[in-house]
Amino acid sequence: MIEQYPSRLLANAVEAISSLPGVGSRSALRLALHLLRQPRENVHHFTEAINALADDIRYCPECMMLCDGEKCEICADNTREHSIICVVESVRDVMSIEATGQYRGVYHVLGGIISPINGIGPGDLTIRQLTDRLSAMTGTAGQGGNGAPESNVAPGQIEVILALSGDVEGETTSFYIYRQIEKFGVKVTTLARGLGFGDNLEYADSLTLGRSIAARQPFKAE
Amino acid sequence: MIEQYPSRLLANAVEAISSLPGVGSRSALRLALHLLRQPRENVHHFTEAINALADDIRYCPECMMLCDGEKCEICADNTREHSIICVVESVRDVMSIEATGQYRGVYHVLGGIISPINGIGPGDLTIRQLTDRLSAMTGTAGQGGNGAPESNVAPGQIEVILALSGDVEGETTSFYIYRQIEKFGVKVTTLARGLGFGDNLEYADSLTLGRSIAARQPFKAE
Repeated sequence: MIEQYPSRLLANAVEAISSLPGVGSRSALRLALHLLRQPRENVHHFTEAINALADDIRYCPECMMLCDGEKCEICADNTREHSIICVVESVRDVMSIEATGQYRGVYHVLGGIISPINGIGPGDLTIRQLTDRLSAMTGTAGQGGNGAPESNVAPGQIEVILALSGDVEGETTSFYIYRQIEKFGVKVTTLARGLGFGDNLEYADSLTLGRSIAARQPFKAE
Repeated sequence: MIEQYPSRLLANAVEAISSLPGVGSRSALRLALHLLRQPRENVHHFTEAINALADDIRYCPECMMLCDGEKCEICADNTREHSIICVVESVRDVMSIEATGQYRGVYHVLGGIISPINGIGPGDLTIRQLTDRLSAMTGTAGQGGNGAPESNVAPGQIEVILALSGDVEGETTSFYIYRQIEKFGVKVTTLARGLGFGDNLEYADSLTLGRSIAARQPFKAE
């Protein structure tokens, strides 16, 4: 039905807005006309907030989470247990787990999940940063801890929770990470399967999610 | 579930995006993280298209439609019938009618509809511009055409189509505009209402069906 826009500026804006996932050209037109009805400074505030996000966002060098400063608030918090690392797909999962109030460890944000169909391989994720982090924590290069001078924590006291989605891609990623970190001798756990198999973390209610963290199980590579 | 954002920049962007109609904080977070995954120049292209729309858009001085130049393409098109003016609520309606390919006249875009509940009165719409336009076309101030030198078209040759929605607000606006323009002596019409072409009686709502019976038309065998 929408065939021709009366203005090139409108057509450009609609095209830009409809590039967002889940926004079709009809919704995009509605949003563009909504923005046109706003005071110009509101529109500038809108675009500046988005530009600032793209331009100035930083990543915590420890857990790879989005942050504004040098380090994220969670990694900078000394009251949290830094020997427990919860590996998640994205910052949304961090927010979901934080909202349960059940977890006092730290995180490691992968920035995605291994997904050959979407062209995402292990090299696109922050798995290398995770192994570097464990290497620094245990003071080893993963060969069993033979005479490591900078060792801070005994490997047995470190726990890595693989908190990925329960679908095939999540399981594959968990398995891949397990293979990469088992050499460090750290305890590897995964979320309790109180969550339905195939469920996405994002859609879980916080009670179920909280219980799944509390009842986490040793990871078994079978 | 989403309680605390790990970054103020992210929180600001989510807040800005969720100010759009129909976008909740969860969708806004998804969109913000989507934008973060895009190359920075794509995000700038996105925000520039929106800023350009807000900053540089113009309104056609004749029909009040969005346009880029001095006049909209429809008003600038001399092959169209400028004595038939279709009054619509928004540019979306212009696009819908243009897509039918059935209309060769011009438009007048009100920029809204009279809606006391939303605080929109006649003064917020372009009704004054419509009466000015008719006044200039008929060469009268609406007092019956007493010796108007700049008269171009006889009032009887001008048609105003009130193409507004069939709800209470649309009907109210149509009635208000009719009262404002009847003094010009122009022909005033409205969209045909009834069952949709090809509609089944069985699924028609009773209001439409009842009115279609009351407003029955002579049968034409063609």
